[in-house]
Amino acid sequence: MSTRRQPFHEPPRFPRGFRCASRHIGLKPSGKDLSLFVSDVDAAAAAVFTRNQFPGAPIVLGRETIAGGRLRGIVVNSKVSNVATGEAGVANARRMAAAAARELGSTADRVLVSSTGVIGVPLPIEKIELGMRGIAAELQTDPLVGAEGIMTTDSHPKALSASVGDATITWVAKGSGMIEPNMATMLAYIFTDAFFDATELDRLLRDAVHVSFNMLSVDTDTSTSDTCAILANGLAGKVDASAFAAVLSSGCVRIAEMLARDGEGATRLLRVIVRGAANEPDARRVAKSLVNSPLIKTMVHGADPNVGRILMAVGKCTDVALAPASTSATVNGFEVVRQGARVEFEDALVRAALSASTVELIVELGVGVASATAFGCDLSRGYVDENAAYYSS
Amino acid sequence: MSTRRQPFHEPPRFPRGFRCASRHIGLKPSGKDLSLFVSDVDAAAAAVFTRNQFPGAPIVLGRETIAGGRLRGIVVNSKVSNVATGEAGVANARRMAAAAARELGSTADRVLVSSTGVIGVPLPIEKIELGMRGIAAELQTDPLVGAEGIMTTDSHPKALSASVGDATITWVAKGSGMIEPNMATMLAYIFTDAFFDATELDRLLRDAVHVSFNMLSVDTDTSTSDTCAILANGLAGKVDASAFAAVLSSGCVRIAEMLARDGEGATRLLRVIVRGAANEPDARRVAKSLVNSPLIKTMVHGADPNVGRILMAVGKCTDVALAPASTSATVNGFEVVRQGARVEFEDALVRAALSASTVELIVELGVGVASATAFGCDLSRGYVDENAAYYSS
Repeated sequence: MSTRRQPFHEPPRFPRGFRCASRHIGLKPSGKDLSLFVSDVDAAAAAVFTRNQFPGAPIVLGRETIAGGRLRGIVVNSKVSNVATGEAGVANARRMAAAAARELGSTADRVLVSSTGVIGVPLPIEKIELGMRGIAAELQTDPLVGAEGIMTTDSHPKALSASVGDATITWVAKGSGMIEPNMATMLAYIFTDAFFDATELDRLLRDAVHVSFNMLSVDTDTSTSDTCAILANGLAGKVDASAFAAVLSSGCVRIAEMLARDGEGATRLLRVIVRGAANEPDARRVAKSLVNSPLIKTMVHGADPNVGRILMAVGKCTDVALAPASTSATVNGFEVVRQGARVEFEDALVRAALSASTVELIVELGVGVASATAFGCDLSRGYVDENAAYYSS
Repeated sequence: MSTRRQPFHEPPRFPRGFRCASRHIGLKPSGKDLSLFVSDVDAAAAAVFTRNQFPGAPIVLGRETIAGGRLRGIVVNSKVSNVATGEAGVANARRMAAAAARELGSTADRVLVSSTGVIGVPLPIEKIELGMRGIAAELQTDPLVGAEGIMTTDSHPKALSASVGDATITWVAKGSGMIEPNMATMLAYIFTDAFFDATELDRLLRDAVHVSFNMLSVDTDTSTSDTCAILANGLAGKVDASAFAAVLSSGCVRIAEMLARDGEGATRLLRVIVRGAANEPDARRVAKSLVNSPLIKTMVHGADPNVGRILMAVGKCTDVALAPASTSATVNGFEVVRQGARVEFEDALVRAALSASTVELIVELGVGVASATAFGCDLSRGYVDENAAYYSS
């Protein structure tokens, strides 16, 4: 990660030529449930999608759409994910793209479609087509308005923007549950007025996703709808590619942390940094093992200094090169494990460290120089409550 | 699995020549916390242990002990696991074996030691040595007495016995949390008066563990103390090996289901059967993915018919051969997924099926003939509550 100044804006704003709108069209009982994101001109585009082998209809269509490398807009509904809906689902996704294209005066092959919500329920396409009519008149420049229409169990809309030279990058995302993205994340859209061609954009996106969304896990469950897309409309011209890459990665990490912190039932962000691994895949494996361990997650939730569990969660990576005697760990700066054994410490201090709103766990493996960072959250009663009745509520 | 009659006993009893005792020696605030299991004569023995790379001191010693292929007894304490305690931990485990050997008039190399409880805390060895004195006088023939002393968060002691010809097999086990065994389970001890040599016993044990404890998961966390040992003292002579193997596997599956049903916070047993996989590893992968998915586990907990999640949990096995269009699933006999799409069903019926005390999920992949069964439980507030304060309570 670069150490350059990364000027994130407060509040977030769109780059030149991007706007959005959102509406309540009756998919949810209340609240926004449809969003449209638009570039005034065709933009170079790239995207990564879930590797789940039962991808939703919007993913099937999205892979076809993104192959063109150009987009004018993104249309997203929440409440129903259009997954496990067969051929009819794909036909409905096409109708949704066509309806959005009509609003924009563009063509369906320039519109990326996303749907998020319950799996296995038919998409109410008539309601969506009807609900979308006239939405172009409502396009405006606050990205948080678009972020609102794509929420499911998120507690707040998520957007972020930052400058790179004269250009701007803006992120809009949702998360919450069914989150361990594999090649992408739940839904994240990135907009920039910098100029890049689709091939370059694709490479930049994959590099950023590798260290951010692909290291994010709320609950180990890989969604069937994960989508991360980037649009570059070029209105700000060319910018330095490496500066752009640094800000892009940094913003993706920030958004991943926002998603983790707002994971279903979460009360804390859990950031796990693994150092001294033999290689990067090993570092990523161990970091994910820690961030996904229910016993680590409940320890953090209860601020219970049961830190021996750290060794359990490292050691259960049976095919990773480890050296127990050289393993150490800290919790928000407090050393809790040294040379593979628990350090004597004052319980109250570690308990206090574990009750911070961000808990950073650093594990040093002592077998090499590779490192990785994973992003997750604690496991609470709230997660159980939300997911024991998600379909019914 | 054999379809022969498998005569499990009620209540469970020991084979000839086995006895046990348990005591409260002050490791826990109250309740039994030490157990001793004994064969009147040296028994052939085999064991499998955790593959966690930070094994507890008793595992380090146990691997050395079991290499001899003969045991007289097993001594187990609960509350403190003697894990991440370095060389001193192994020395303490040796002292624990020696103390038990003195009670039995045997030698330390014939005593298997197990410890279960908090990780990273020194074993109170003086208290254990003192607490064990005179325990041989209390040896008796009810295996449930020994099962009581090895409990941690288990809600009840677990033992089982069955006949094979003239011989008996008896299982004593504990489970509850930090359970996704890998080559063994938390703690399971199997006693038989059938005659087998240590090599044959080892093969029989591994085959049985493969379909039982290694398909068990309460929470994906592989303990540092997993131990499954079998003792055969030969007092009943030889029995038919294939009949023995069938009863052994069947009993291990039953015990695995008892452990799953009594997983921390669990209110239901979740049994996942995957059929029609391309090969057995694929079938096991998918079955484990389902049984470990927090979104499947909370769906079962809430009896919420959000069955699209089944496809998510199958599809996230990215390196397994799948054919979405030929995937189907049932919940306690109700078809919920057909050809990769959700079936229209009456919510109330599936809700009722999901609220049974045993929820059996059958997934047909339709790509081959291999199958596997995994054992787990629902995810409840109780799991969170127990594990957010385990160390402190």
